[in-house]
Amino acid sequence: AILAAIVQRLSPGPLRGRHVIVTSGPTHEPIDPVRYIANRSSGAQGTAIGRALVAAGATVTFVTGPAVVPPPADTTLVRVETAQAMHDAVMAALPADAVVCAAAVADWRVANAGAQKMKKSVDGLPVLTFAENPDILAAVSRLGDGRPALVVGFAAETQDVTRLATQKRARKGCDWIVANDVSAGTCIMGGTENAVTLVTDAGAEDWPRMGKDAVAERLVARMVDVLTAVTP
Amino acid sequence: AILAAIVQRLSPGPLRGRHVIVTSGPTHEPIDPVRYIANRSSGAQGTAIGRALVAAGATVTFVTGPAVVPPPADTTLVRVETAQAMHDAVMAALPADAVVCAAAVADWRVANAGAQKMKKSVDGLPVLTFAENPDILAAVSRLGDGRPALVVGFAAETQDVTRLATQKRARKGCDWIVANDVSAGTCIMGGTENAVTLVTDAGAEDWPRMGKDAVAERLVARMVDVLTAVTP
Repeated sequence: AILAAIVQRLSPGPLRGRHVIVTSGPTHEPIDPVRYIANRSSGAQGTAIGRALVAAGATVTFVTGPAVVPPPADTTLVRVETAQAMHDAVMAALPADAVVCAAAVADWRVANAGAQKMKKSVDGLPVLTFAENPDILAAVSRLGDGRPALVVGFAAETQDVTRLATQKRARKGCDWIVANDVSAGTCIMGGTENAVTLVTDAGAEDWPRMGKDAVAERLVARMVDVLTAVTP
Repeated sequence: AILAAIVQRLSPGPLRGRHVIVTSGPTHEPIDPVRYIANRSSGAQGTAIGRALVAAGATVTFVTGPAVVPPPADTTLVRVETAQAMHDAVMAALPADAVVCAAAVADWRVANAGAQKMKKSVDGLPVLTFAENPDILAAVSRLGDGRPALVVGFAAETQDVTRLATQKRARKGCDWIVANDVSAGTCIMGGTENAVTLVTDAGAEDWPRMGKDAVAERLVARMVDVLTAVTP
């Protein structure tokens, strides 16, 4: 954290003095001490965004689930496992000028998670009940006075991407949605490339397929436009 | 596979000419295109056993789920994701002189896994139904004429380890159970050390806590005793 603060103070970029929180990676939701529910997010896109924000001079708090790729350097790093812990870490890291919710957060957790390992021979087939997890994107978007100037969400869809992402933007109350098609054939989830649609109040822009680093740089350039038009 | 065959033919070890199948790592059971059920197995113990078997001169087929640690060198490597695929790969790799089932195989899969991503906004809380996965250890143990001379299973328990492992040995029909306590406080699952109890027809032996490589070498030494007493 001290190093991050020094790096940030010395860096000349356009986001110098701005605090951005990035969430990244999957969350793991326990079923019992050895089993959990996960998702295929590698953390690659969130990590690339964190790196691009650091390069632009921002002070970055990087809240990550158990990702495959290593986290970006020179950030305040917070490692979490569950959606609830990620929510709490984001709230604790506020205030911020912007929040980028790139993590693939589990919508729900197992309400009847066991303290002991479930036994096939004793328990038979499991009956899992679920509870809704806190919605980090909606919670940040609906903050009153402390709402960040820019709240960016992600949407991983397998069909009808633009329509669903536009609905998601309205439902969550965020400013932008970065939407992508994670269908099996696209090789996006876990891969190095991304083909996204940016949904803002001005509508939907389809960006060409490019590396996740390039998506991150383009997104951060757009963030610079918005954030430098706002008095910090 | 060709390299593995050459290495095996040149190696002088006591298991030269013996074929051993090792399963390792977790399995992933899909919920929908992006979500899955996993477990905390890193594949470290199974990989160490594969390596020790290669060092002892065995021809090793290494069937691994999505593990954290890289697989051992000089084996016939089969990568799988689900328990069903692991079962099929083991059956396809038979006959074998011994099978070591070190993988943490999911007992059940999601019977109503979705072809599209589940949507919180549309589908609400999920209702997952489960189906029992094939039991690889029991299936191999109960083979008729083609049964391997030695079938070794693993038991990951969080309580009452020896009693449950002894019951498991009888229930599965395998020769040995290597049992360990994977309670959170032990740091065994995902860690580098292991403290196991070997359950055989002669009873239960508690081994002292040691590195997973040392557990593997000691286990393979015991396997050599049994397998070299059997005409191949």
